[in-house]
Amino acid sequence: MNFSSKLLEDVVESLGSLPGIGKKTALRLALHLERDDLHIGQKIADSIVKMKSEIKRCTNCNNLSDHNLCNICTQDHRRKDILCLVESVRDVMAIEDTSQFSGQYHVLGGRISPLEGVGPEDLSIDLLRERVASGLIKEIVMAISPSIEGETTIYYISKLLAEYELNISVIARGVSFGGELEYADEITLGRSIESRVPYQLKI
Amino acid sequence: MNFSSKLLEDVVESLGSLPGIGKKTALRLALHLERDDLHIGQKIADSIVKMKSEIKRCTNCNNLSDHNLCNICTQDHRRKDILCLVESVRDVMAIEDTSQFSGQYHVLGGRISPLEGVGPEDLSIDLLRERVASGLIKEIVMAISPSIEGETTIYYISKLLAEYELNISVIARGVSFGGELEYADEITLGRSIESRVPYQLKI
Repeated sequence: MNFSSKLLEDVVESLGSLPGIGKKTALRLALHLERDDLHIGQKIADSIVKMKSEIKRCTNCNNLSDHNLCNICTQDHRRKDILCLVESVRDVMAIEDTSQFSGQYHVLGGRISPLEGVGPEDLSIDLLRERVASGLIKEIVMAISPSIEGETTIYYISKLLAEYELNISVIARGVSFGGELEYADEITLGRSIESRVPYQLKI
Repeated sequence: MNFSSKLLEDVVESLGSLPGIGKKTALRLALHLERDDLHIGQKIADSIVKMKSEIKRCTNCNNLSDHNLCNICTQDHRRKDILCLVESVRDVMAIEDTSQFSGQYHVLGGRISPLEGVGPEDLSIDLLRERVASGLIKEIVMAISPSIEGETTIYYISKLLAEYELNISVIARGVSFGGELEYADEITLGRSIESRVPYQLKI
């Protein structure tokens, strides 16, 4: 690309270093920002700098937070005896969006993956153990994505927590709601048959 | 979306106000920025603020520029007698990328579109007239996109400049290189037959 302005080029380059943003998209965004009078550019700049300097990890659940405790951990009406273990902040948001869970969360920060060099010590497993040791939690729901690494993580953690009196469950896996059976992959379909549940006739 | 952090939400909201960036993409980018240690966030913030405060329009051709004259207008080796008229900065970059043009440019800043409320007075037509009046320019290549508004713009400007001794040309329109005839739209295909050129046998 031939830039007539180094200032423009710098914006394109910095935006282009974001994942999924190519050079052409970055140029489109930069030219939009250049034209725009609504101070979107200033807002973006301010919000990024503010987030980078002020955002914390919740000292209880490792979720992203503005304070020492995140605003899920501080909600009094939530159940304290059930905990949902997730990989990332995005998973917390996805589950919260379903409104189907009103317990506690714990954000691991990834999954055990020797290939990617992620070991148990890189995840917030010690913090989880401390929480379990406090005795309040009676059930852990493993909401870890179904994959080799996910299975490994679930296995490692459930073994580690075996000494505590805990019910450990895994979120149901099967064909998606609205999905066509013929398009489901073999492993998913196979498992959904294996983990079939009794049909309850509701009259 | 349920955010555990207002700081994160602010970044998602500001990024999400960019064209073509939806909420989910904005969240992915914001979480990437949060995790990232390479100061990409700071670079983005700095480059946007710097561009917004320092970028100028070239006083000669209306291109984006870091100085009063852009770095195309200041290139001595370029032809001074031929000028390529384009709508936007992006068009200048696209043509420069082809390396097929080594004359001057003039950036209109849009095209005449009564429907969108863009009249001749909103474009840098006065500046173009001044340049033409100086007498240096002998040919203007209209590289305006082929559309109703584009045609109107070309018509308006060529009429306005009729009093000067100028050759006015329009970039060739026709089927794209590598394009299949059957997929070309009727207007394009029709025009490409109308504006057919003699085949020159090269031996």
